[in-house]
Amino acid sequence: MTMPEPASPDVLIIGGGLIGLATAWRAAVRGLSVTLCDPAPGTHASYAAAGMLTPVTELHYGEETLLGLNLASARRYPEFVAELREASGGADPGYRASGTLAVAFDADDRAVLADLHTFQRSLDLKAEWLSGSEARRLEPMLAPGVRGGLLVEGDHQVDNRMLLAALFAALEREPKVRIVRARVAELTVAGDRAAGAVLDDGTAIAAGQTVLAAGCWSGRIRGVPQEAVPPVRPVKGQILRLAVPEVYRPFLTHTVRGVVRSNHAYLVPRAHGELVLGATTEEQDYDTAVTAGGVYELLRDARALIPGITELPLVETRAALRPGSPDNAPVIGPTALPGLLAATGHYRHGVLLTPATADAVAEILATGEIPDVVAPFSPLRFRK
Amino acid sequence: MTMPEPASPDVLIIGGGLIGLATAWRAAVRGLSVTLCDPAPGTHASYAAAGMLTPVTELHYGEETLLGLNLASARRYPEFVAELREASGGADPGYRASGTLAVAFDADDRAVLADLHTFQRSLDLKAEWLSGSEARRLEPMLAPGVRGGLLVEGDHQVDNRMLLAALFAALEREPKVRIVRARVAELTVAGDRAAGAVLDDGTAIAAGQTVLAAGCWSGRIRGVPQEAVPPVRPVKGQILRLAVPEVYRPFLTHTVRGVVRSNHAYLVPRAHGELVLGATTEEQDYDTAVTAGGVYELLRDARALIPGITELPLVETRAALRPGSPDNAPVIGPTALPGLLAATGHYRHGVLLTPATADAVAEILATGEIPDVVAPFSPLRFRK
Repeated sequence: MTMPEPASPDVLIIGGGLIGLATAWRAAVRGLSVTLCDPAPGTHASYAAAGMLTPVTELHYGEETLLGLNLASARRYPEFVAELREASGGADPGYRASGTLAVAFDADDRAVLADLHTFQRSLDLKAEWLSGSEARRLEPMLAPGVRGGLLVEGDHQVDNRMLLAALFAALEREPKVRIVRARVAELTVAGDRAAGAVLDDGTAIAAGQTVLAAGCWSGRIRGVPQEAVPPVRPVKGQILRLAVPEVYRPFLTHTVRGVVRSNHAYLVPRAHGELVLGATTEEQDYDTAVTAGGVYELLRDARALIPGITELPLVETRAALRPGSPDNAPVIGPTALPGLLAATGHYRHGVLLTPATADAVAEILATGEIPDVVAPFSPLRFRK
Repeated sequence: MTMPEPASPDVLIIGGGLIGLATAWRAAVRGLSVTLCDPAPGTHASYAAAGMLTPVTELHYGEETLLGLNLASARRYPEFVAELREASGGADPGYRASGTLAVAFDADDRAVLADLHTFQRSLDLKAEWLSGSEARRLEPMLAPGVRGGLLVEGDHQVDNRMLLAALFAALEREPKVRIVRARVAELTVAGDRAAGAVLDDGTAIAAGQTVLAAGCWSGRIRGVPQEAVPPVRPVKGQILRLAVPEVYRPFLTHTVRGVVRSNHAYLVPRAHGELVLGATTEEQDYDTAVTAGGVYELLRDARALIPGITELPLVETRAALRPGSPDNAPVIGPTALPGLLAATGHYRHGVLLTPATADAVAEILATGEIPDVVAPFSPLRFRK
């Protein structure tokens, strides 16, 4: 934070969400100097998110490769947050080994979960089928009609806002990292190589390597040659935060995910009484309005699973934009432009994939070697 | 606003909602000097309200006497806002002669409206029965299933926030009125007569007459003798504000009230694109939390009437406390303590009753005469 101007860092990171911030930290740990630019770091999707670390519960057909990365990042989490707590001088990153319970509202929803269970077992993933009454024994607030579900004891959560705060605290103490609260106007290309960027106010930052970590805006930085533009688009999510008054605690102890008449809903209980309720998935370009319909559907589905939410204060409504990619998998690694890396496209898994992405990108920045676990997610896979 | 301290006004008004502010203005017009005390004037129920001026649509059995006051205040509104506009130097009080359409969702709800229509006609009130298709011709956003309703062309609306702003502007220009942003700690009683009040900071204000206009808090001012305490209680209302984007305007042109599976819902469209959607009625003591259940029910019922609200941004959620009285009618006039008047208990009609109440209280303050229209609402009626 005290480097002299103008800076010529080893690495320029464009974007200060969880991915950019964690990458800055891990790159500094590897000995690299970093400048991170964002007009409002930590305020977009990373701030809105629910922080589920649920690779097994959120498994989708055809995403076995992504599962490998998701599991690796989930496994890395306990160590990652322990290191971060130390690096930050004691900030609690809000990791909670709460386990996840996925439940079904009706018979059709039950069939969806049963299919998921079959698929999970075929991959040797640990998930236990519970009857409705077994599920209610674990979570007494579940609706009487809930048709059973899946207990995934290894799917946890992190309070993404506490995680952001811990990252800011760690970077504050890290002399190799400078955060510039400004927008990048244009990438600088010199001799067919990314060479840094120019900020909105005209400041030029020269850097040996540049990382695009600007979420759904990663494809809109001027000056990036067409063949190096990450193919990301905004996927809107609306999300609510309820408060659980002392007298009702513990309201839920596990993350509860539900399939409600084919809609997916989830409730993530924080240790300090916040209950996060999400989320819509909408293709609405860059619109971030909270809508009457979005809030209605979230409350309707959550209420079907947990009728008792009715009494809880609704303390926040928010919408943010996930960075989606053509195959719903992240875009991590060197782009077609030498000196330019991408770390974006994390879609619904940005919080989960923060440790694995930050470690891998730091490794690439420090050594040029691409770790096996992220190799399938190269930006180059979209080339025709 | 420029009177020397310590002030000894003719009148002390405790409470700066619409009733208190309008009473201050009307009393000043009658030549009286006024000090109004409120730690946060214009921020509670008066700010939350929807501003419906709908005495005919909101008619209830057994409330014929209240109807007379409601109608008188509704008739007074156009002149009241014209005078206020002039007094404020041109502020628009947001009065809108939009008419009101009350619709029914199902056959049972239709029967409720038909009963209301019969009652309205028995009192010679003007209300026109419309079929479902006639109602949809007036308001094309109405749900296809809506079973007809009542058009009340004389039931209008005022933007209560614009009305508050106009009152503040008028009082700013009125040298006879001083607004003190502080809480009253205790009423002063001298020789069996109200004599002013002491503020939280110890400041004493001596006044010949004092008006209790503190909404649901009017019964909790220390120092008021038991027999003079207005019997008011808080009745919580949750209310939402949506925004109608330019491209959808006009979304609605009338205030739409609906009976939806026996629940009452309303949508009030403002000229500038705000759509107010209310309101719950809850006995929750002084709790003002916006709850998941309250927001859910409001959206559910409004959506049943006007499915298109789904697309509209939800820009505000709020809860406030109506001052309810034992007979749901206001409490206006001299109390059992000489020198102490009440102007409270307006329940769901505070905005509607602002002109009639302010005029009547100003009349009593100036002349001691109680206007016939408010005589039935004397605080003394609750004496055993």
